[in-house]
Amino acid sequence: MVAVITLTTDFGMTDAYVAAMKGVILGINPEAKLVDICHSIRPQDIRHAAFILGTAHTFFPAGTIHMVVVDPGVGTDRRAIIISTPSAQFVAPDNGVLSHVITQSSAKGGENYADRTQIELPPGLEAVAITESKYWRSPVSPTFHGRDIFSPVAARLSLGCPASDFGEPVTSVVMLPPLHPQLTANNILVGHILHIDNFGNLITNIRNDDLSQEMTSITIEIGRQLISGMGQTYADREGLSALIGSFGYLEIAVKDGNAASLLNAEIGDEVKVRLR
Amino acid sequence: MVAVITLTTDFGMTDAYVAAMKGVILGINPEAKLVDICHSIRPQDIRHAAFILGTAHTFFPAGTIHMVVVDPGVGTDRRAIIISTPSAQFVAPDNGVLSHVITQSSAKGGENYADRTQIELPPGLEAVAITESKYWRSPVSPTFHGRDIFSPVAARLSLGCPASDFGEPVTSVVMLPPLHPQLTANNILVGHILHIDNFGNLITNIRNDDLSQEMTSITIEIGRQLISGMGQTYADREGLSALIGSFGYLEIAVKDGNAASLLNAEIGDEVKVRLR
Amino acid sequence: MVAVITLTTDFGMTDAYVAAMKGVILGINPEAKLVDICHSIRPQDIRHAAFILGTAHTFFPAGTIHMVVVDPGVGTDRRAIIISTPSAQFVAPDNGVLSHVITQSSAKGGENYADRTQIELPPGLEAVAITESKYWRSPVSPTFHGRDIFSPVAARLSLGCPASDFGEPVTSVVMLPPLHPQLTANNILVGHILHIDNFGNLITNIRNDDLSQEMTSITIEIGRQLISGMGQTYADREGLSALIGSFGYLEIAVKDGNAASLLNAEIGDEVKVRLR
Repeated sequence: MVAVITLTTDFGMTDAYVAAMKGVILGINPEAKLVDICHSIRPQDIRHAAFILGTAHTFFPAGTIHMVVVDPGVGTDRRAIIISTPSAQFVAPDNGVLSHVITQSSAKGGENYADRTQIELPPGLEAVAITESKYWRSPVSPTFHGRDIFSPVAARLSLGCPASDFGEPVTSVVMLPPLHPQLTANNILVGHILHIDNFGNLITNIRNDDLSQEMTSITIEIGRQLISGMGQTYADREGLSALIGSFGYLEIAVKDGNAASLLNAEIGDEVKVRLR
Repeated sequence: MVAVITLTTDFGMTDAYVAAMKGVILGINPEAKLVDICHSIRPQDIRHAAFILGTAHTFFPAGTIHMVVVDPGVGTDRRAIIISTPSAQFVAPDNGVLSHVITQSSAKGGENYADRTQIELPPGLEAVAITESKYWRSPVSPTFHGRDIFSPVAARLSLGCPASDFGEPVTSVVMLPPLHPQLTANNILVGHILHIDNFGNLITNIRNDDLSQEMTSITIEIGRQLISGMGQTYADREGLSALIGSFGYLEIAVKDGNAASLLNAEIGDEVKVRLR
Repeated sequence: MVAVITLTTDFGMTDAYVAAMKGVILGINPEAKLVDICHSIRPQDIRHAAFILGTAHTFFPAGTIHMVVVDPGVGTDRRAIIISTPSAQFVAPDNGVLSHVITQSSAKGGENYADRTQIELPPGLEAVAITESKYWRSPVSPTFHGRDIFSPVAARLSLGCPASDFGEPVTSVVMLPPLHPQLTANNILVGHILHIDNFGNLITNIRNDDLSQEMTSITIEIGRQLISGMGQTYADREGLSALIGSFGYLEIAVKDGNAASLLNAEIGDEVKVRLR
């Protein structure tokens, strides 16, 4: 069996950090198949990493091990964890970076809370706090657990070692506050821009499921622009259009152009949907 | 046998798009060897993609599968195709992105035409229109055929499935207008800049073969600069020099510097060669 | 045995150069495991490449082959070499790009010299000048030895061919002038910034070993800023801090921020450590 290990970091590609982790992994499991998900997470931006991993991981084969190193608290007392789902394993700091993964695996809708908080793990998921130092590189650099702790753990998981080898089970993990859009009294759904992609498409936190009625009867509002109804593809309307993107989120795009530049839009900007 | 699958896209490396495609491929063929050719194609720039793929593909082993996703018409009625050459297979939208590959495989010189046009496939090449939906992911996102159609098709080709499994043969494909330099009455070859590389070298559409006479007797003109004769390497002349680059195109470079910055040159700028 | 081949270049990821090399390698050894160390070396910056490779290579498994193509003198009479250490092999132009690798493998401290110079290879290392053209691609482009010479050589090394197949032994190689910090009469260690990483951390040429006394009793000076004592992690002090980074160098960082931007610092800037 080929073991796939994915890497998601804020390390960029101009340093030797990613390569050092790959070297460590291949030293333990030379057969591991390494796939970069993204190394351009904005430095220390846990929410950005949670979104990117959340959109990518579901497309990987069962048994894939996903390692995430966006870790502003490295070397402090923040925990490191392994989360096992029915289809994959995740090795990451316990700082909220797995929030999307956990929410997607959870049947019940998220409650609302304002700040990062410790929540009980949904049924079907298991977590272990990584504490067993005998599997780590030695000495451990206080600034690079990705290389000295996460990499050897992920490599050994890929060889079939059970998660329980690496520490004790835990039942709660840190979650980011959920980003559900809010429905106002006059039937307006208020969301915001989660991510701007390479094409300048504006990806919002409003999901397919939030828009169950006919798509033609809604109006989308961003800044001073109004968009009537939704398209299917990036090419089927001139100018600005709204559509459900390939990961299931409402997106705002512009044909043959860059919506972010055109609208001078930024992550966090409000997007409203007037439902009928 | 190891199956190599290459990827060329305009997705950049800051989103999860490339990773999602890799995940889909590895789910079908876990042994596939994935090689990134380039993910920095300028958004929706078919000509750029055609050039980069055209320069890269000939260096890959026989049997390599090249997947190209630069696809401004995704979700419209543009076709998706598989082209099989004696040494490789290509999975791409039928939008001209394989123009260089097809021209290189064609014995006869290109005719001139002004716009994108449908041409008959040269002998030795075979094409299939991808229509057999049972091999696709379901549902297919109207905005991401790279993930939902091209990736499963490329992965199955890498397992040895024949191209004919995926649709009916077609005999003509969309080509970009050719970019041959023009020879004027007074023996001046007029070309232009095709690509500017990472070093600022200016790569023109004038090829080795267009310059069959002795290289010392020509003069190259770009903007107001004249360059007499040609060098062999980037280092053997001070200042500006002209040489045949590693892919066979006339290049303009500057020793220990950046020709694009020095000359304020852009893609499309005219380059003239005065032949004797 | 899986053969790992790493690649370090200044080619960037917007051209087909890296892909062409990978294609050539896989044509010779389809089982080779290719790992990118970095393709964002500043164009033709040998010192930058030497630093990045020097920090990355020690984390790779024994037997790894490291290929470096930062090669401003390509096509001139600069030599190409294979250096074999007890744990790895390096294929590179003989232009100083392996200086860190060689220094790390050398027991004795570096002497001081001002310019690039030819030094005798330390015991335990072996070098071969690559001259046997029968293993090269043909014809060899005078501007791309990475593809036409280094790639086929690295691929054959990864198949187990001995280095002696590729040329005659040599006993001296080109080294960059060492970058040891200087100790002044009044007990100040004067170093400078070697590298600025993706987070804006300032990595100096002052190493762990240069600071053998208690870390709390030193003062670090950069520009007009003074930093008293050293931290352990990026998070354990507000504002500016100094610490030993994960590769063993003194770094200057700022919690939740970017030290390079804050201090307007550049590579080469002086950093002083006042020892007690």
